[in-house]
Amino acid sequence: MSGVTRSMVPLDVPLDKRETFREHLDKMTGGSGRLMLFAGDQKVEHLNDDFHGEGISPDDGDPEHLFQIASRARIGAFATQFGLIARYADEYRNVPYVVKLNSKTNLVKTIQSEPLSRQWLAVDEVANLRDENDLNILGVGYTVYLGSEHEAVMLTEAAQIVHRAHRLGMCAILWVYPRGRAVTNEKNTHLVAGAAGVGACLGADFIKLNCPGESEAIENFREVARAAGKAGTLCSGGSHKDEKKFLERLHQQLAAGARGSATGRNIHQKPLEQAIRFCDAIYAVTVDGASVSRAMELFRGDPGA
Amino acid sequence: MSGVTRSMVPLDVPLDKRETFREHLDKMTGGSGRLMLFAGDQKVEHLNDDFHGEGISPDDGDPEHLFQIASRARIGAFATQFGLIARYADEYRNVPYVVKLNSKTNLVKTIQSEPLSRQWLAVDEVANLRDENDLNILGVGYTVYLGSEHEAVMLTEAAQIVHRAHRLGMCAILWVYPRGRAVTNEKNTHLVAGAAGVGACLGADFIKLNCPGESEAIENFREVARAAGKAGTLCSGGSHKDEKKFLERLHQQLAAGARGSATGRNIHQKPLEQAIRFCDAIYAVTVDGASVSRAMELFRGDPGA
Amino acid sequence: MSGVTRSMVPLDVPLDKRETFREHLDKMTGGSGRLMLFAGDQKVEHLNDDFHGEGISPDDGDPEHLFQIASRARIGAFATQFGLIARYADEYRNVPYVVKLNSKTNLVKTIQSEPLSRQWLAVDEVANLRDENDLNILGVGYTVYLGSEHEAVMLTEAAQIVHRAHRLGMCAILWVYPRGRAVTNEKNTHLVAGAAGVGACLGADFIKLNCPGESEAIENFREVARAAGKAGTLCSGGSHKDEKKFLERLHQQLAAGARGSATGRNIHQKPLEQAIRFCDAIYAVTVDGASVSRAMELFRGDPGA
Amino acid sequence: MSGVTRSMVPLDVPLDKRETFREHLDKMTGGSGRLMLFAGDQKVEHLNDDFHGEGISPDDGDPEHLFQIASRARIGAFATQFGLIARYADEYRNVPYVVKLNSKTNLVKTIQSEPLSRQWLAVDEVANLRDENDLNILGVGYTVYLGSEHEAVMLTEAAQIVHRAHRLGMCAILWVYPRGRAVTNEKNTHLVAGAAGVGACLGADFIKLNCPGESEAIENFREVARAAGKAGTLCSGGSHKDEKKFLERLHQQLAAGARGSATGRNIHQKPLEQAIRFCDAIYAVTVDGASVSRAMELFRGDPGA
Amino acid sequence: MSGVTRSMVPLDVPLDKRETFREHLDKMTGGSGRLMLFAGDQKVEHLNDDFHGEGISPDDGDPEHLFQIASRARIGAFATQFGLIARYADEYRNVPYVVKLNSKTNLVKTIQSEPLSRQWLAVDEVANLRDENDLNILGVGYTVYLGSEHEAVMLTEAAQIVHRAHRLGMCAILWVYPRGRAVTNEKNTHLVAGAAGVGACLGADFIKLNCPGESEAIENFREVARAAGKAGTLCSGGSHKDEKKFLERLHQQLAAGARGSATGRNIHQKPLEQAIRFCDAIYAVTVDGASVSRAMELFRGDPGA
Repeated sequence: MSGVTRSMVPLDVPLDKRETFREHLDKMTGGSGRLMLFAGDQKVEHLNDDFHGEGISPDDGDPEHLFQIASRARIGAFATQFGLIARYADEYRNVPYVVKLNSKTNLVKTIQSEPLSRQWLAVDEVANLRDENDLNILGVGYTVYLGSEHEAVMLTEAAQIVHRAHRLGMCAILWVYPRGRAVTNEKNTHLVAGAAGVGACLGADFIKLNCPGESEAIENFREVARAAGKAGTLCSGGSHKDEKKFLERLHQQLAAGARGSATGRNIHQKPLEQAIRFCDAIYAVTVDGASVSRAMELFRGDPGA
Repeated sequence: MSGVTRSMVPLDVPLDKRETFREHLDKMTGGSGRLMLFAGDQKVEHLNDDFHGEGISPDDGDPEHLFQIASRARIGAFATQFGLIARYADEYRNVPYVVKLNSKTNLVKTIQSEPLSRQWLAVDEVANLRDENDLNILGVGYTVYLGSEHEAVMLTEAAQIVHRAHRLGMCAILWVYPRGRAVTNEKNTHLVAGAAGVGACLGADFIKLNCPGESEAIENFREVARAAGKAGTLCSGGSHKDEKKFLERLHQQLAAGARGSATGRNIHQKPLEQAIRFCDAIYAVTVDGASVSRAMELFRGDPGA
Repeated sequence: MSGVTRSMVPLDVPLDKRETFREHLDKMTGGSGRLMLFAGDQKVEHLNDDFHGEGISPDDGDPEHLFQIASRARIGAFATQFGLIARYADEYRNVPYVVKLNSKTNLVKTIQSEPLSRQWLAVDEVANLRDENDLNILGVGYTVYLGSEHEAVMLTEAAQIVHRAHRLGMCAILWVYPRGRAVTNEKNTHLVAGAAGVGACLGADFIKLNCPGESEAIENFREVARAAGKAGTLCSGGSHKDEKKFLERLHQQLAAGARGSATGRNIHQKPLEQAIRFCDAIYAVTVDGASVSRAMELFRGDPGA
Repeated sequence: MSGVTRSMVPLDVPLDKRETFREHLDKMTGGSGRLMLFAGDQKVEHLNDDFHGEGISPDDGDPEHLFQIASRARIGAFATQFGLIARYADEYRNVPYVVKLNSKTNLVKTIQSEPLSRQWLAVDEVANLRDENDLNILGVGYTVYLGSEHEAVMLTEAAQIVHRAHRLGMCAILWVYPRGRAVTNEKNTHLVAGAAGVGACLGADFIKLNCPGESEAIENFREVARAAGKAGTLCSGGSHKDEKKFLERLHQQLAAGARGSATGRNIHQKPLEQAIRFCDAIYAVTVDGASVSRAMELFRGDPGA
Repeated sequence: MSGVTRSMVPLDVPLDKRETFREHLDKMTGGSGRLMLFAGDQKVEHLNDDFHGEGISPDDGDPEHLFQIASRARIGAFATQFGLIARYADEYRNVPYVVKLNSKTNLVKTIQSEPLSRQWLAVDEVANLRDENDLNILGVGYTVYLGSEHEAVMLTEAAQIVHRAHRLGMCAILWVYPRGRAVTNEKNTHLVAGAAGVGACLGADFIKLNCPGESEAIENFREVARAAGKAGTLCSGGSHKDEKKFLERLHQQLAAGARGSATGRNIHQKPLEQAIRFCDAIYAVTVDGASVSRAMELFRGDPGA
């Protein structure tokens, strides 16, 4: 019996697309209602910093690495830019895709100019790519920088993208990050809870958040998860760290109400086989409700896993 | 006999939609021509500040709290964002909705950058949501910051939204707030009267205003109400305060010509049952013309009420 | 025999609308080619400053006052915002209307930010209001601030509005005011003549100008009137002053080539009956070519008038 | 035999409009391929400064003066704004018109704000005016300020206007002026050659330039004319000066490769008859290849001329 | 057997245009998958600086020089602006064209204002020019300045142009240059690798880059080529230098993974015959895989070549 219920289908999905939408959600969450997102939009967001350098597997220098992981690991969805999907998906047809519709580079810092990331392509163009090629594109993604002086531009684009995705039977995932000169602590729990609420008001199905600091994660995250209401919150993985600690923290976040995880660098900076096993571990915790020790067995490739 | 007359139907409502428009107005105002608006757009406007913290009921942390109140209390209309309505209205079908079409966060202060809040979705998309789902959406709302350097953007969006709402048989409520570096006293009576006049020129059916200070409220508010002409002025509830004082002030404002009230935090920060009873009290004063003592009986849940 | 000739009909009016256009011009000018405009857009432009305060009749506090004057006095046209017309015109059907398509408040001063006033609604929406309700809407109006850093925005909107009005058989009146940090003397004759020329290049039928100072009005205004060519210049009434002096000045301006007058506050700040008689006096001078003494008899309500 | 060859017809003119386009070019250049442009857009660009004052004929105060000259003199084309043409062309049907599609005033100086001049109306609206009224509109004009911080806006509008004019069988003339804080010498030959090249890349048929200073005109102008390639360069007349010197300079510029002249103030600031004869003189030099002494005979009205 | 495989055709090319697209790629790359681009957009980008002056052949002063080279030399494609192609292509029909869709001048420096270059014309207008005239237009080009404060504008235009080109069966080449106050070293290898990745995410078929400095070119360029994935990187030729060194460097870049070269000034600043022979030499290295010594024979016009 699926954890994806009628109540997860927003009313702006047309009647004749609601069953499809529910099936997409079911597929993305393995019937759990919880999403393990493999986030792979960093080639723009962080340029080549996440893909080449000390501590990064040479495998990661080629964008195909992302598709190889996404194709062979257990994941809920792989989020990346349209151009890469158009170039690689012919050979990676089984991957469940989410098209990230905006991206900016990290060259201009907030101190120089307030963050602004704009929509690259229309949701209809994504739907068309899906339909013409029979691809497994389940949703779209978009980042909003709350507290930027350009916030208004992104709030409008986000609202329209979410709505248009729903009209076309697709899910919408918003990355909602407080950022700008007005924001002094991007990870403050109360502020992140506000971001979760904004995502809910924009109609997002899932909201990717910069989750609050570790020690108080469980108690504090409840405020965030509650603020999002029926929309699901995804905890962002952040920078590279010890795998066991990573999974423990994720387990706590889920216990506190998170409806999923979004991980990028911690996966793709590993060599292919290791990256695949780490995906599987994250997926087990997020979707299957596995324990951390069971997930670590998967990561280590324990034969009994 | 209804207090909603033909003269409340503006001429830009098409002939074949005028009866519907009048019925909507009748429904929204309980036939009184006066509107009790339950304003619930703060999850963006104030992030989680109004929903979590000292003196706020834990009930308020979940957006569904708003819908529970709106569904069980006597209200004229419940105003909130499209995304929340699309997510919750399936289970709260009896609520009379107003879709708030723009919102901004409170992160960027006026001293950093002039206020700008832009339209998220088209009025036609609201009408479509209403028609496809047979929802009880009676109108749309929009905030204009007069005196902002971005005033021109919002005046244009407001005029177009009001007109398009009327074309589609819906009411239009404008929040008209003087704000920006050029504004030294946002609640100055004469300035608020100017804001009321702008709302009238934009064609609003109701204009939500930051009402002038308490002591001189009755006399001074007459200037405001007159400036709005046939458009109705709604007094905004403002921050948390003693319920009896709140109702007394509202009673005075209505006596001075206000055509309704708009209340948010004073309602939803209460636990559910108390919030419902406070709505009923406000509704009684606003629409039924009840006395403050009668309204306080309702709020206290006096069995005879 | 009418003073409105074929040569007053610009070639961008379609062939099948030229007779209608000529009739509108004839109606607006009483066959004289000269326009007495009752300008009533100040509820946005000056907020409530022109409608409430010392020396202003209490009648003026309610926007309906404007419609009562416009309905009962002799006027060429009454210019105000779309929202007010949609709200009141049902009961004031005989009024010849001009819809003022842009307006800004006076909150942000030039020293803070360069003036910008943008179009609120499309000319087609005005034509639609006229046609659906059989209203007597004869034209549209728009303000251009020459010398503002945002001049380019307004020049383009003005050119498009004039052209679209002509396509739909309506007249176009431009308010052309030099304003901005670059403008040191807004009423300099030579500069106002430049503004008149810009209005002509934009295709306006009438151009409302801030007319140069009193003493040298006749001689200097000839430069302005000539610069406008076949387009008619309207002298703006300015702030409150002695009625006889007002009419004398107007008489001089007309003698110097002005093709009409535009008066707002000097009319509507008076009590209703007095306002009506002052309109009649202004109309007599502007359109009938009456002497100032004859006009003063009308204003005083002399029975023989 | 015409100097206007197939190679002057750009390939973005549709096949079925190429003969018409060639005929327009033939008409505009008297079959010479060289254009004598009577430039009359200064009522916006310079307000009334060029039309009223010391040394300016009183005739010039009325915009009809421009049409009288254009109608009675030999000219290639008369460039002015749409609004004036719509107002006057009914009585001046023989004039070959070019509609100048953008203009700005000279109030805001470069030191205050970078120059920006935007398109007022669509090329299709020009074509429509031409077709409905059977006017002799042969082309459109547009100014680009290279080196302005707003350069990108004007480059895009220019490219689209040129292309759309060609689609509709009309010629396109670009005024390409380096201007802005980044430009220290607007008339530097090498820079003007760059401007000519930009005009060519934008697809202009003729490019009006601020031509380099007198003494070295011949030699230096060759760089400019070559940079424009098959596009024709027009030398702008500049401010008032001795007629003989004016014609000598023009003769030199043509010898150095200019494909025409663009003159405004030097023509229309003269009394009507003198202005007409000066046009004839300029036309003779530009199009007929007449000598300066022959042209001066025409200007002086020598009976044998 | 062609080096252009099915995997080089992105999935946003419609099914019925994929064969055409593959043929275009085949033609552009001589079946090698490697592109020799003759880049000729400098008449806007550098005004006349690249076409007139010391060390530049007088041939280069006339834009037709570019077309003569492109017509007679071996090249993959010649990239220049729409306006020039519309003017000259009738006589140079055999040239394989790429239409460069944006350009800016070099007048405004980064220190004054952040770089912004906007789209001039629609991809559909390019396709129309191609179809109506049966021209050999194989693709479109666009420049993105990463790290500019206007980056968001260009990222969006780039993504849309690439996608629209693919829809119409054309290739898309992006010039991706880090530039702006935030960029301290435009040619830093790691940064250029980031630019390559962005180009891939935007869906470009080829990405023109400012290639890193000479000495470490081979080793470092591998990071760049890998970051582009299946998209091809083109090394930009840069400023004038010794031909042998130029070809040696190119040979190294290709060995390190570059999929082509883009050269402008080093070609067109030479006299016609020499320019043609240098194209042939570059083509031989880029596409035929010739050695540098063989290429130098071609450049020197060795009879046995």
